[in-house]
Amino acid sequence: MGRVIEVTDVILRDAHQSLMATRMALEDMIPACEYLDRAGYWSLECWGGATFDACIRFLNEDPWERLRTFKKLLPNTRTQMLLRGQNLLGYRHYEDTVVSRFVEKAAENGMDVFRVFDALNDVRNLETALKAVKRTGKHAQGTICYTISPVHTIDRFVEMAQKLVEMGVDSICIKDMAALLKPQPAYDLVKGIKEKCGKDVLVHVHVHATTGVTMVSLMKAIEAGADIVDTSISSLSLGPGHNPTESLVEMLEGTGYETRLDLEQIYKARDHFAAIRPRYREFLTEFTGVETEIFKSQIPGGMLSNMESQLKQQGQGERIREVLEEVPRVRKAAGYPPLVTPSSQIVGTQAVFNVMMGPYKVMTGEFCDLMLGYYGQTDGEKDPEIVALAREFAKKDPITCRPADLLKPEWDELRKAALALEGNNGTDEDVLTYAMFPQIAPKFFKERPQGPKNLGKDPVAPKVPVDPSHPGYLSAPIEYEVTLNGKKTKVTVAPA
Amino acid sequence: MGRVIEVTDVILRDAHQSLMATRMALEDMIPACEYLDRAGYWSLECWGGATFDACIRFLNEDPWERLRTFKKLLPNTRTQMLLRGQNLLGYRHYEDTVVSRFVEKAAENGMDVFRVFDALNDVRNLETALKAVKRTGKHAQGTICYTISPVHTIDRFVEMAQKLVEMGVDSICIKDMAALLKPQPAYDLVKGIKEKCGKDVLVHVHVHATTGVTMVSLMKAIEAGADIVDTSISSLSLGPGHNPTESLVEMLEGTGYETRLDLEQIYKARDHFAAIRPRYREFLTEFTGVETEIFKSQIPGGMLSNMESQLKQQGQGERIREVLEEVPRVRKAAGYPPLVTPSSQIVGTQAVFNVMMGPYKVMTGEFCDLMLGYYGQTDGEKDPEIVALAREFAKKDPITCRPADLLKPEWDELRKAALALEGNNGTDEDVLTYAMFPQIAPKFFKERPQGPKNLGKDPVAPKVPVDPSHPGYLSAPIEYEVTLNGKKTKVTVAPA
Repeated sequence: MGRVIEVTDVILRDAHQSLMATRMALEDMIPACEYLDRAGYWSLECWGGATFDACIRFLNEDPWERLRTFKKLLPNTRTQMLLRGQNLLGYRHYEDTVVSRFVEKAAENGMDVFRVFDALNDVRNLETALKAVKRTGKHAQGTICYTISPVHTIDRFVEMAQKLVEMGVDSICIKDMAALLKPQPAYDLVKGIKEKCGKDVLVHVHVHATTGVTMVSLMKAIEAGADIVDTSISSLSLGPGHNPTESLVEMLEGTGYETRLDLEQIYKARDHFAAIRPRYREFLTEFTGVETEIFKSQIPGGMLSNMESQLKQQGQGERIREVLEEVPRVRKAAGYPPLVTPSSQIVGTQAVFNVMMGPYKVMTGEFCDLMLGYYGQTDGEKDPEIVALAREFAKKDPITCRPADLLKPEWDELRKAALALEGNNGTDEDVLTYAMFPQIAPKFFKERPQGPKNLGKDPVAPKVPVDPSHPGYLSAPIEYEVTLNGKKTKVTVAPA
Repeated sequence: MGRVIEVTDVILRDAHQSLMATRMALEDMIPACEYLDRAGYWSLECWGGATFDACIRFLNEDPWERLRTFKKLLPNTRTQMLLRGQNLLGYRHYEDTVVSRFVEKAAENGMDVFRVFDALNDVRNLETALKAVKRTGKHAQGTICYTISPVHTIDRFVEMAQKLVEMGVDSICIKDMAALLKPQPAYDLVKGIKEKCGKDVLVHVHVHATTGVTMVSLMKAIEAGADIVDTSISSLSLGPGHNPTESLVEMLEGTGYETRLDLEQIYKARDHFAAIRPRYREFLTEFTGVETEIFKSQIPGGMLSNMESQLKQQGQGERIREVLEEVPRVRKAAGYPPLVTPSSQIVGTQAVFNVMMGPYKVMTGEFCDLMLGYYGQTDGEKDPEIVALAREFAKKDPITCRPADLLKPEWDELRKAALALEGNNGTDEDVLTYAMFPQIAPKFFKERPQGPKNLGKDPVAPKVPVDPSHPGYLSAPIEYEVTLNGKKTKVTVAPA
């Protein structure tokens, strides 16, 4: 009997967020829950991240009801969520009472493990959420966003882990959203954390598959002492998603490490999601291969397509190469933030502005806030000249305190505004939904009684000859039966 | 400076054999050669396997000319081929003179590295080819086909490596065509070979990507001392193909191992093949994910689809599960041959017969030959009762000698027959082409003057809304401009 490696499957959250734009309806996940619950996972990530937003924006589904359903259907397995620290699941900083209330309500509705992260790795932005989790008695996981830069050394990340342990977390997560974590740093980082924080500190490793190296990184992390790893069942894996769970199980055979997973149960869940996946074809990522240029450019795929579309809107699509060269300069000026939502958008947009209008001739409000500390501290030093420019531009002073310290109590006001909305059910859960998504919550509350919308569609005839690697093009003529004025005719349509 | 890991790229042979039915035309590979030749590979696998067959059967391309072209375009890199031992590139055993002549001619036309294997791992079937390679002064690589069975222990494979070293090979290849080689056995096997055969014996590891574990196996093989590994450039990688070259390069950073590869050159080749790939869409595999059930079933994907189609032809498609259970029994009875061409087909077909007509009520000629030793020795003991049945059925005695020892000299006869064919150019190369493919060589010789056919097609309009994960189905209506009796009309066609 080898050392047991625990596994978190992300199939109910990050897998479909990464591969099918977070569109999977709860009813398409429910039939797999009995298999997932019996498979022997440490936890199932099933809530948070972009799912809350997608539920109310696209699916007319109450995210709190989704959570309660999972809790009921997964009696033997921990539920897990991804929480953006002081931002909760929204896009601004919330005052501490709101953050605490959110955590309490999530715990009450069935959440067991809270993975809490901050885009800038500023631990002060994690404090309130982590403390609230501890108060509920649930599992508080402090998260390190992995990135590469001159200031992001292994020692730096280990120091952050030490701070998180001092804050009382139950485990540390290494979160590698861009698949940048190579095998050797994976080994060194886990080893470093275990050495400095104590070997009993649980280390949980989350990697994406995009660059094709991270399955090896998981192996190395395990050899260095990692306790839990994230994977996704194969029918929703790879590309911008995660490494396949079944492969992880098989990979460990004979190594002295083993999972507790029951592959028979996992195969049943795999078959379910393999059958469901084509129903979401219009949301599925076209990219299912491997992309390694991110190691050179440091620019995640999503950020690249954002900048390309911004340039095209300005009729300057051909300047993408200049922008790609500008991004590292802007990132350096901003103190090397990890490039993850929202910092990736902020840095990318500023790089586009710099190329189109000259360096820092125009600065976005968000970029000024980033430079002035309103998102928190970055690991690198900021360029003082650009900070001065931002101060002038935004007419605001830089801050060094925790950003949320500047916020006034807002719960009562949010509650009042939420209760005034048609369809609001008067619960704190609804107040939180409104607090995080004030623009879309009103419509959602009103339309909620109509029930969830499933955006999946059954594949439709006719069968057409197409190429999976070149989606969207016919490879041969299509035959149709056309009824015109009541008369049926066989028509073959071929490109001219 | 770490230990250098050399790399063989299979993009010019096994990659398109595994992903696009070996259909890539030489002219679609030529533009990438300058990048490939500058990239720093130990070798480029570019010939042999199924490419010879595909050249004359589908592409009207002279495979010997293909080889000469590669040699000219790759002046700085070893060319490499896959050779099926005594079968050469055909489907029967050839008499020794023919085998030697083939090797001489391949060397003369530009082949540098000969990877020689036998489907049963019977080293006697490798002897003649390896000796011939040694005589030409080229690189003779002896190959171990990796498989899993009760008799296929690490020690057994290491013994085979020792035999190959005694035969004077320049290197040992571990060939894992079904992606069954897990990390720990990869480590143990390479370690075992290095320990027993000497650390200077070059070990070359070839794995496919199908099961999602073999990138880790490459890492472990390297840690155990492997000298050279096989990968394929990302735009033709993964699924039933190979692990991406770029990912291998990146994976090793900081590990104390490094390649000599220049990623800039590789990116140029990648872009070339990414552009070419869609032109072969009708031949591309639809499966690009990960499949781990082969660890349970031991049945490679290609073999499974063969058996399914055999059953369907008999109207008994529903009996596939019985056949899947029969395969391991037949494999055991036959002495646990690796399931690779041609043994996979032989075992699979007999399993289908057993299910449809009762165990061994009917036996194929090939299965009888396998049972009676006419393909060579298997690593496991054969079931004596089934051997007796085969003897009765085939009216032949079992043999224990090297199968080719029973063959009479055949070169003169083959030469005479070849020279009689219209379009034959009188060279030994043409005699060998005829010897290996007597059915299709006559047509090829006749039509050769018409020049190569490129089966790639430019993607054709119209652009249609389809789903890459569910190839062949529309996700929305298509709009056409239809010209009827000279009048243009916009027509929207939607599934009824």
